Amino acid sequence: MADVNRGIKERDERIRQLKIEYQKFKERHLKLDMSRGKPGPDQLDLSLGLLDCVNARDGYITQDGADARNYGLIDGISEAKTLFAEILEMDKSQIIVGGNSSLNMMFDFITMAYSHGFSPSEPWSKQGEIKFLCPSPGYDRHFAITEYFGFKLIPVDMTPYGPDMDQVERYVLDPLVKGIWCVPVYSNPEGITYSDDTVRRFASLKTAAPDFVIMWDNAYCLHHLTDNHDKVLNLYKEAAACGNQDRVVTFVSTSKISFPGAGVAAMGASPQVIKEVRRRMSFQTIGYDKINMLRHVRFFRDFNGICEHMKLHAAVLRPKFDVVLSLLEKNLGGKGIASWNNPRGGYFVSVNLLDGCAAKTIKLLKEAGVVMTPAGATYPYGIDPHDRNIRIAPTYPPISDLQMAMELFCICAELVCLESINNIQ
Amino acid sequence: MADVNRGIKERDERIRQLKIEYQKFKERHLKLDMSRGKPGPDQLDLSLGLLDCVNARDGYITQDGADARNYGLIDGISEAKTLFAEILEMDKSQIIVGGNSSLNMMFDFITMAYSHGFSPSEPWSKQGEIKFLCPSPGYDRHFAITEYFGFKLIPVDMTPYGPDMDQVERYVLDPLVKGIWCVPVYSNPEGITYSDDTVRRFASLKTAAPDFVIMWDNAYCLHHLTDNHDKVLNLYKEAAACGNQDRVVTFVSTSKISFPGAGVAAMGASPQVIKEVRRRMSFQTIGYDKINMLRHVRFFRDFNGICEHMKLHAAVLRPKFDVVLSLLEKNLGGKGIASWNNPRGGYFVSVNLLDGCAAKTIKLLKEAGVVMTPAGATYPYGIDPHDRNIRIAPTYPPISDLQMAMELFCICAELVCLESINNIQ
Repeated sequence: MADVNRGIKERDERIRQLKIEYQKFKERHLKLDMSRGKPGPDQLDLSLGLLDCVNARDGYITQDGADARNYGLIDGISEAKTLFAEILEMDKSQIIVGGNSSLNMMFDFITMAYSHGFSPSEPWSKQGEIKFLCPSPGYDRHFAITEYFGFKLIPVDMTPYGPDMDQVERYVLDPLVKGIWCVPVYSNPEGITYSDDTVRRFASLKTAAPDFVIMWDNAYCLHHLTDNHDKVLNLYKEAAACGNQDRVVTFVSTSKISFPGAGVAAMGASPQVIKEVRRRMSFQTIGYDKINMLRHVRFFRDFNGICEHMKLHAAVLRPKFDVVLSLLEKNLGGKGIASWNNPRGGYFVSVNLLDGCAAKTIKLLKEAGVVMTPAGATYPYGIDPHDRNIRIAPTYPPISDLQMAMELFCICAELVCLESINNIQ
Repeated sequence: MADVNRGIKERDERIRQLKIEYQKFKERHLKLDMSRGKPGPDQLDLSLGLLDCVNARDGYITQDGADARNYGLIDGISEAKTLFAEILEMDKSQIIVGGNSSLNMMFDFITMAYSHGFSPSEPWSKQGEIKFLCPSPGYDRHFAITEYFGFKLIPVDMTPYGPDMDQVERYVLDPLVKGIWCVPVYSNPEGITYSDDTVRRFASLKTAAPDFVIMWDNAYCLHHLTDNHDKVLNLYKEAAACGNQDRVVTFVSTSKISFPGAGVAAMGASPQVIKEVRRRMSFQTIGYDKINMLRHVRFFRDFNGICEHMKLHAAVLRPKFDVVLSLLEKNLGGKGIASWNNPRGGYFVSVNLLDGCAAKTIKLLKEAGVVMTPAGATYPYGIDPHDRNIRIAPTYPPISDLQMAMELFCICAELVCLESINNIQ
């Protein structure tokens, strides 16, 4: 019987039990961090060979004969462009290989639009109060970039097929709505992959702003957890077919393929947009770390090499996701107080509790030594209007810790939800 | 006898000879690049051990126990901060270790001031037409950053002691003058080190703008060519003593110590400024490449290790500078048409020809296959008001190439200067 339908007496008894269990956990003085999508050390070990594959013996000359140790090649070495072109399914001439962080490339892109404008338009800083669409729940660091520049963040509901395109189509009639954040494959946090119809509606979107940008963060396009791979339609191709190629900017990195913080990031866009970004880069830097690009190409060899490598990640991650999902099912399943996704890839499990129960649950967890992503973090301004969404990041802790943390999570979530039902009734 | 004093007949005869010599060079179809301050491959070989000193066997854990392969530590690993703190002579808490490019850190700083303001003031983008002081000849990429943002660039004359401080003190009475670019040790291109008096006048400068910034690019502070080391006074300490600590932002990198493009950059500033930069970084990135930081600390060990390493660079570079200086002396010395510096460090020899002769000389060189830094590049907007300054970068070519290029340089310079004398008289 679902908890919502139990009598108050039964609920009070269950609350009493849960409090005892919670107290027991508290006395174990746990110290677990489930807050960020960090690979675990066992995943990092998969790329150890990358560390020293560029060395004095094996050389440091690129396929075009450039010395990767010296200045030059501002937008990356040729073989790295080839690799990222295949990942992003774009022409090599439309790829810029950057530094260690795709987030930094996104930040730089928004900064460029702010100070100098994007495409043929005026700088955003001179166009009034800019607004940006934020499909929610979504990635807090995306929203934060646009918040930093003082843009008004507009939440857009997520559906099982991607952002609610009816809402998007309505919002973009406002010329001050300049863009949208998207994680099209295994979205953060819900693990949703945008449907073909969603992508086509993005491609043909009639925007009032000529300088509207779709920030297409393809962070998890290779991060499958099963053999049943999600695949998103190529937005750039679809948009180009509608004459809208300049509005699509795609990003990807190897942060969760090789080493977070010591990986390689890349972006792809139309020839016109790439030209504008390259121009800005010519003022910004003399070039990015080409030795690290060469390391990656040498270690992974090619696109197939990366795909094989991702199977090794999946083998490490699948059991961790299974722990999370099976404990959610065992402890919260059928009780009518929580729902969650069952992602085929990505880094997160997204749980929705009863309205008003997320912040309290996370507070209880914290008091017992388990740190989660803050409640609301997946919404613009950190405010979840329903106070219900919690992002679980199962990748970093060892399985034994994960089990403990999830047992505790389920206790806290049920406790808070039952008390909430009591308060309402 | 100086060429300027010769008779026209003698000059014509010399011009005829020079033209023959030039023609001979042209027929050799040279292809030499002396345009940028790039280390030569022999210098890069000095750091080969750096490439693979972080590896599976020797580990990747920092002295504080962090896994350098994973996310975290947004402003750098502790041991890298220690190293850069010693180089910049600042407290470790005031150091941010960044990515591979100090130019990028400078660009980001100016970008921050532009969009969000610096210190407690309004964003520069909202304060009207910003002006920036550019000691000239100077570094073209510095000037270009401030030109990119549309600031008005104001040239300031260089003296043998640094920028002309009388001019600086006058200009900063204008509240729209927001800052100045400085290369205080072995300046680019003249190899001048600022005198103690210059530094003290910077420290106590009475600026109308509360958000005035001294962009103190200490690029060459370790790049001695002789045992007779130049040393600049610690501007931060001097400024702090005057209560002006928030106006000093210092930068340095290992680009020309280890690998250009694969080195590590750092900045140092007051606690208040560092706090502001860290805040911006928290939106911009999850962190820089810590594995590369660890490589550098492991390879160089400490400040003394870097100083020893710089002696190896000097041993490679000194003969190259000697070629340039001895050929200048041999071919142009005492002719009254050219003057140059004799730097004790840095990457350049700066030559001043007769007024109006730089662009033509560089054009002749180019037509014979030798690329130099474009004439005017060392001045704001690429315009040398005297058209006389040429920056020679002796570091990259092998000595045999350098000899050829310098022989040709002297031919072209003398030819252009003599023709110019003829035209005037």
